[in-house]
Amino acid sequence: MAEPQPQKRAPLAERAPGQPDTVVQVGPVAFGGPRVVLIGGPCAVETRTQILETARHAAEAGAAMLRGGAWKPRTSPYDFQGLGAEGLALLAEARRATGLPVVTEVLDPRDVAAVAEAADMLQIGSRSVQNFPLLREAGQSGRPVLLKRGMMTTVEEWLNAAEHVLAAGGRDLVFCERGIRTFEPALRNTLDLGSVAVLKERTHLPVIVDPSHAAGSARFVKALALAAVAAGADGLLVETHCTPTDARSDAGQSLDAAAFADLAQACRAVARAVGRDL
Amino acid sequence: MAEPQPQKRAPLAERAPGQPDTVVQVGPVAFGGPRVVLIGGPCAVETRTQILETARHAAEAGAAMLRGGAWKPRTSPYDFQGLGAEGLALLAEARRATGLPVVTEVLDPRDVAAVAEAADMLQIGSRSVQNFPLLREAGQSGRPVLLKRGMMTTVEEWLNAAEHVLAAGGRDLVFCERGIRTFEPALRNTLDLGSVAVLKERTHLPVIVDPSHAAGSARFVKALALAAVAAGADGLLVETHCTPTDARSDAGQSLDAAAFADLAQACRAVARAVGRDL
Amino acid sequence: MAEPQPQKRAPLAERAPGQPDTVVQVGPVAFGGPRVVLIGGPCAVETRTQILETARHAAEAGAAMLRGGAWKPRTSPYDFQGLGAEGLALLAEARRATGLPVVTEVLDPRDVAAVAEAADMLQIGSRSVQNFPLLREAGQSGRPVLLKRGMMTTVEEWLNAAEHVLAAGGRDLVFCERGIRTFEPALRNTLDLGSVAVLKERTHLPVIVDPSHAAGSARFVKALALAAVAAGADGLLVETHCTPTDARSDAGQSLDAAAFADLAQACRAVARAVGRDL
Amino acid sequence: MAEPQPQKRAPLAERAPGQPDTVVQVGPVAFGGPRVVLIGGPCAVETRTQILETARHAAEAGAAMLRGGAWKPRTSPYDFQGLGAEGLALLAEARRATGLPVVTEVLDPRDVAAVAEAADMLQIGSRSVQNFPLLREAGQSGRPVLLKRGMMTTVEEWLNAAEHVLAAGGRDLVFCERGIRTFEPALRNTLDLGSVAVLKERTHLPVIVDPSHAAGSARFVKALALAAVAAGADGLLVETHCTPTDARSDAGQSLDAAAFADLAQACRAVARAVGRDL
Repeated sequence: MAEPQPQKRAPLAERAPGQPDTVVQVGPVAFGGPRVVLIGGPCAVETRTQILETARHAAEAGAAMLRGGAWKPRTSPYDFQGLGAEGLALLAEARRATGLPVVTEVLDPRDVAAVAEAADMLQIGSRSVQNFPLLREAGQSGRPVLLKRGMMTTVEEWLNAAEHVLAAGGRDLVFCERGIRTFEPALRNTLDLGSVAVLKERTHLPVIVDPSHAAGSARFVKALALAAVAAGADGLLVETHCTPTDARSDAGQSLDAAAFADLAQACRAVARAVGRDL
Repeated sequence: MAEPQPQKRAPLAERAPGQPDTVVQVGPVAFGGPRVVLIGGPCAVETRTQILETARHAAEAGAAMLRGGAWKPRTSPYDFQGLGAEGLALLAEARRATGLPVVTEVLDPRDVAAVAEAADMLQIGSRSVQNFPLLREAGQSGRPVLLKRGMMTTVEEWLNAAEHVLAAGGRDLVFCERGIRTFEPALRNTLDLGSVAVLKERTHLPVIVDPSHAAGSARFVKALALAAVAAGADGLLVETHCTPTDARSDAGQSLDAAAFADLAQACRAVARAVGRDL
Repeated sequence: MAEPQPQKRAPLAERAPGQPDTVVQVGPVAFGGPRVVLIGGPCAVETRTQILETARHAAEAGAAMLRGGAWKPRTSPYDFQGLGAEGLALLAEARRATGLPVVTEVLDPRDVAAVAEAADMLQIGSRSVQNFPLLREAGQSGRPVLLKRGMMTTVEEWLNAAEHVLAAGGRDLVFCERGIRTFEPALRNTLDLGSVAVLKERTHLPVIVDPSHAAGSARFVKALALAAVAAGADGLLVETHCTPTDARSDAGQSLDAAAFADLAQACRAVARAVGRDL
Repeated sequence: MAEPQPQKRAPLAERAPGQPDTVVQVGPVAFGGPRVVLIGGPCAVETRTQILETARHAAEAGAAMLRGGAWKPRTSPYDFQGLGAEGLALLAEARRATGLPVVTEVLDPRDVAAVAEAADMLQIGSRSVQNFPLLREAGQSGRPVLLKRGMMTTVEEWLNAAEHVLAAGGRDLVFCERGIRTFEPALRNTLDLGSVAVLKERTHLPVIVDPSHAAGSARFVKALALAAVAAGADGLLVETHCTPTDARSDAGQSLDAAAFADLAQACRAVARAVGRDL
């Protein structure tokens, strides 16, 4: 028989009968309310100019939060691994310059305290969705957590991963669908909006979507972003870069300022068509 | 190395540089134009009353075409296999009663002539996407073809399957994404809207989406339908039944009249938000 | 929830409590007995010389049956589609020359009678595993059937596909695992030997393995063939060609005479280690 | 296009032209030499009696090493998480009692030093295959590393994960295939022996197989173990327990003493048939 699926094993993450949606607050930003939250920023923090310029164009286009990686999980040890603590400092500067709260990925349980000090929200990346020591540290940090789905994580396992954070003391958690791995090579991953719909039923917590990692190519990001908003996503995590061709990672999927603004405007129209705003 | 991906092997199906979208006309219905085409109807034609009542409520809600299976591909030989020729006659009657053009699946190359005589459009189902003798017969029939994606078909193979129809003389073909098979058991299939976006770039032919088979459960159909329209689908193929609990197949994923009308209205709003109508 | 799995829906294909293995006889060849059956031959019948030479080297190496395609299912309509009826005649000649019974694929229900007349066993290919009209015709033909697994067929669906053949009157059926489609691009398909073990428990019918289509590359065929015999397969279906570099399809995965003989000898040693022979 | 596959990005893990197999030595045990290495033991260390009894029957049956988990990665935070440091002490006692070197999983980079002190080999589990901080710590520990494949890891990514260990200073690494995640629910995972064959070509390092996690059910472990040895695996990692029905995790897939001894004997016969021993 198939791998057993745990049943109602995640009492903190799963929606109790009649339980209303939980709104997760990150500074002034509310996930799970009437407004679809747009998060924009580069894959990795690279330079002071890059993060400041990108943060500015994202804010102007309507982004409510800034993303950017200080520690990057890279398939190869010989690729750019991020600026580390220096990246955190640059993100903090971009926050001061634009007022946008910051979310950034933490890879190592030993870095959780430093990241929680510098950032408004901790991102647990796809490769860490079942890194249980890291989930526990994140839960104990007191910071809201953005929990990306792994490339082969079932909805059931994803709920249980969230439960590790919540059982360790975490209170504020947002799920982020980012595409799963399938046989189809046309795009980088297969965005699974069905699981967003399922998750909105199964959990009281907000669910956002990262169309950039699903598409893997800038020219398909907008279609997936629009679909995500129509499907009921509470937010979007979109890669944008002041000069995408210079990006040291994920160059092909980063939107430039104009494309990001166009995406924001188009998503706003769809958000309104489904009774929300952006 | 991986299974080799043929390159530009499907010259009739693939978009040539600068080639505009092709509009596929099925009677008064235009696929690929400004209007998103809503097709509604039951999984299988079961009785005269059932198909007539369902066709009426679908038409009232805004469906432009009627679907219904006369021959059903069933995993087990002991399940209901459809009414066959009698089902075709009932579909023709429902067309006369409502004015809706009819699309129905053909499973056997020996039935193509009869189905082409009775229906306005031939559906090639998921399990037949690489049934090459059937694709050739459909191409020779003179009827427009609705080509569903197989559960395991890559975009590349799908384009090549269409090429079999077109190389045999077919001129009018519409692609229909209906979800692929992945590791995720939460829904019946994983709807791949990324491939819709890719296909809109790769081919000049229309692309529609079947959210019912992807969801497998009525309560997730609307979210997927909205997402499909937002992603740029040229139409929707939605299962609806006058009394879903009585359906002899796919009961769980059929919408009743009220849910179908609600889906149509919500999809119209999203269609308008992306510059189209329904 | 997940796509429902039918339970004990295939009473003719599934093993009843205590039911012994069924031996399927194809002329002098017994599938499911103590001897592992080696089937060798080219992907497609191409010329008289090619099929006769290949049949001879296969027979010398220990093959008990000859394979070769007369109608080939090809992704593109512009690729070589097989010699058709002429291919059947050449296979019959190779049978007379070597004494090897012949198995060949049938794609179209309208060709079943002709193939059943010319060949000793009908192959239903991967793309046809749920081509129900074809399964029924094959079941009614009186010939033994070799039923390959589809690239995304579950064991449950595969048993039900066999049931379509048996419910139509078929008595002799052999399953053939040939790899499934997964995210891993290193080989053409992922050989699923676990499902062979599961199937040997679930059905009383023989199960063989095609390592050639799983590997997609000649240099990995032997390792997979050895593994299949060790896992309990009742036979092997291996592509071999007198001059592989000239093959009009699947050139990269065909073994030449020497490699085929080496595979046969190595598999015989493993067969003996698990209490069988080849 | 598909996710880009790095080419020759892992110079320490990949086989240079003509480079012979590397033998990884763990005390008296040699991985990658003529002898297939059998590792046996429970999923988790539970009690002193359990680990000592299991180690004894494993040693008697021919196991060359002992496995057992002190920290267990569990989907749910409410399941047994292992005995931690106490488990390490019990493993060390079992090693003294039987002479078997010990391999155990480390989950947290902060535990690497303690595990490296107590165990002969560090296991990096499936969920940690791209836990880059952990890979680096393991590489710096000086201990040999057993690197399991993730449920969704391509061969290419797996080689790069090994490169993270080796680039950090690790010298001795053994790969362990344990099944991947696919659409097929019949077993817990789909054992991918094709990737073992590919890996034996791509890397100079040893490759072993864990048939227990692939099968998920004790009655299919032996067939997969035999297949692995026939396919060229350099060893086996098999779950066994003195009283499987009492196991606190993975009870269904653990072999009892008799079944483990039977597996060892059968694998020895196949090992000899392919020119090795066990």
